[in-house]
Amino acid sequence: MISPAEYEARLERARAMMRSQELDAIVVTAEANLRYFTGHAPHMYVSPTRPWFAVLPLAAEPVALIPGMGRADMARDCWFSRIETWPSPRPRDEGVTALARLLLDSPRRFGRIGFELGPETRLGMPAADFLRLLELMKPALTAVDCSSILRTLRAIKSDAEVKLIRTAIDAAQAAFDDVPKLARTGMTEHELYRAFQVRLLTAGAERVPYVAIGSGFGGYDSIVRGPTSRKLGRGDILGIDTGATVSGYWADFNRNYALGEPQAAAVAAYRTLWRAQDAALAALRPGMTANQLWRVMAEQVGLDGTAVGRMGHGIGLDYTEPPSNHPDDATVLEAGMVLTLEPSLVYRAEDETGPVERFMALEEDLLLTADGPCLLTRRAPPELVVIADA
Amino acid sequence: MISPAEYEARLERARAMMRSQELDAIVVTAEANLRYFTGHAPHMYVSPTRPWFAVLPLAAEPVALIPGMGRADMARDCWFSRIETWPSPRPRDEGVTALARLLLDSPRRFGRIGFELGPETRLGMPAADFLRLLELMKPALTAVDCSSILRTLRAIKSDAEVKLIRTAIDAAQAAFDDVPKLARTGMTEHELYRAFQVRLLTAGAERVPYVAIGSGFGGYDSIVRGPTSRKLGRGDILGIDTGATVSGYWADFNRNYALGEPQAAAVAAYRTLWRAQDAALAALRPGMTANQLWRVMAEQVGLDGTAVGRMGHGIGLDYTEPPSNHPDDATVLEAGMVLTLEPSLVYRAEDETGPVERFMALEEDLLLTADGPCLLTRRAPPELVVIADA
Repeated sequence: MISPAEYEARLERARAMMRSQELDAIVVTAEANLRYFTGHAPHMYVSPTRPWFAVLPLAAEPVALIPGMGRADMARDCWFSRIETWPSPRPRDEGVTALARLLLDSPRRFGRIGFELGPETRLGMPAADFLRLLELMKPALTAVDCSSILRTLRAIKSDAEVKLIRTAIDAAQAAFDDVPKLARTGMTEHELYRAFQVRLLTAGAERVPYVAIGSGFGGYDSIVRGPTSRKLGRGDILGIDTGATVSGYWADFNRNYALGEPQAAAVAAYRTLWRAQDAALAALRPGMTANQLWRVMAEQVGLDGTAVGRMGHGIGLDYTEPPSNHPDDATVLEAGMVLTLEPSLVYRAEDETGPVERFMALEEDLLLTADGPCLLTRRAPPELVVIADA
Repeated sequence: MISPAEYEARLERARAMMRSQELDAIVVTAEANLRYFTGHAPHMYVSPTRPWFAVLPLAAEPVALIPGMGRADMARDCWFSRIETWPSPRPRDEGVTALARLLLDSPRRFGRIGFELGPETRLGMPAADFLRLLELMKPALTAVDCSSILRTLRAIKSDAEVKLIRTAIDAAQAAFDDVPKLARTGMTEHELYRAFQVRLLTAGAERVPYVAIGSGFGGYDSIVRGPTSRKLGRGDILGIDTGATVSGYWADFNRNYALGEPQAAAVAAYRTLWRAQDAALAALRPGMTANQLWRVMAEQVGLDGTAVGRMGHGIGLDYTEPPSNHPDDATVLEAGMVLTLEPSLVYRAEDETGPVERFMALEEDLLLTADGPCLLTRRAPPELVVIADA
């Protein structure tokens, strides 16, 4: 669990950056950011009816401004002493004037308020309400992007955060270990998908917000899809990616399996991906940039092999977080970051119609330490796993 | 499954409203709206890295504008013939200029483009990117809210949609039926939570994005929370609410259980909620408004008993959809709407410390037909279920 002291330290680090960016407060609305600062993540984020706000002033107490129905849960989990509510739903004023008043009443030095506006953010409120808030804040306060503060803070994981990610990873590992028992030719992707989700839960995942599955003769063609009614058959390559959480912290890695003897091209593709990770693990040190890490892997798989556009990313309270292992991302990798290594490539297999393009990815999760990478996943074997009796 | 003809009909109905609201196109970005129009819901919505757009012009073909990695899946599921991509991630231009170009190149009559801006919407792209898009659209095009079109379209369910909701409900019903076997004193909420999710999946739910659980001696105090490490005990009231989906369509209803003999106040609270639903089922007819339906229930539970702020809502591709059974919502209820009846109240129980406030809700899902309500859930029994041997 995350301690109250850690939550206070998060706020203090945020305030140091707010000071240097000349912000009087930041307002967070996204589920991951609300949880990061308050310690509470309302389950009701699956409903777009009600927004949830945390206001973090530079020079005053933090405030959770939330729908009335959420008070008991927020009070139980959140270390803030100020929790304010409005009667919701109230679509004509869904917390907007209350938020404006709170910001206008807070200590003012710079006249600037930070919001989640930049890359890889989503505002957790209707856009029209945000535009109205800007009007209500005028002329005293202007809104600026604070996503760099959130990105910087959240990128470096504490020991407690790593422990939660590890717990999610261990559950996923146990579920992957059982796939050779669960996957049988003749069953549909849907059936395996259900069985795998069940196994994730019984192995210790709290929730299973994401599982992707792909299968196909000679290989699959997507690692981000839901299940279909396709039946698994001999000669298939099966890929499963997850997607399990513990206290909001994600595991994200995948595994590949051959159902019966695989085609040589699939075996070779897998070896290439494994070698690319090997090269990345050998090269990775704090101070390296995300695009340097990308290049180490890309040189192994071929520079045009970036079918998903990047070769890994951060994980934490979001399923994917900055940075991206991508040629355009010059983020300096630091000790304390939790990253995935996810090389992928397109290869040519054969089905009954002739040559076909197939896709493969291989993903591991690691903690970057001062000494280099520490794998959080138990690394996939160097050769494609064959389920001979599937 | 939803037929291609139904997707085409959705677009045609949208176009009729676009014409009357003088819109050249609408752009959707939220998962439920993307699925509603394209037939495809990218699993990657759990990641904030990449946005997904569907552009629905009044006088040209619809276009899915998506990250390159999504092409294979979109092409498989979506009935559009135009699928365009950009290489993503690319945070400096995450589809924004491509979207602007597409809109500027589309047939123009009114110079107005509809976006998801209004109540109970979330834009599925970073706010800064949306503001930049508005600049790129100037002066030819202005952005206006189209949420009323989306709300109107999605509120009336087709037979195929009702069938998917029913399938999700049937899975949840089977899981609820098993709670008397699953729930035992001495187990934690976490343990029951896992077992219940497993049961939902084995009973036919495809995914379980939401389960809330509450327990407490004499009653629980929240129906929207995740599990805690609290151990179930004799004298508890247990409430579980779900939260299961099939092809993106939601079931949302709850059930209450007493572990051993309940306090009289809990028994009475339950009877009151059941009677409130009875009154609502008797009164509900097309043409009634959502606030009239609220009043029928509120009169039974006491007008101040609205602990969650409303007494039910629409369901469909979102866990909660308009309308709200709320005093301020004058939406006319029409045949084809799928609604929940969710009266709730606060009552006074006793624990070892003396009198305590407890909370109870009871929820059913129904299809409104020309003749009145048709329950989709098997209605909860009129008396609180007692698990005598828990």
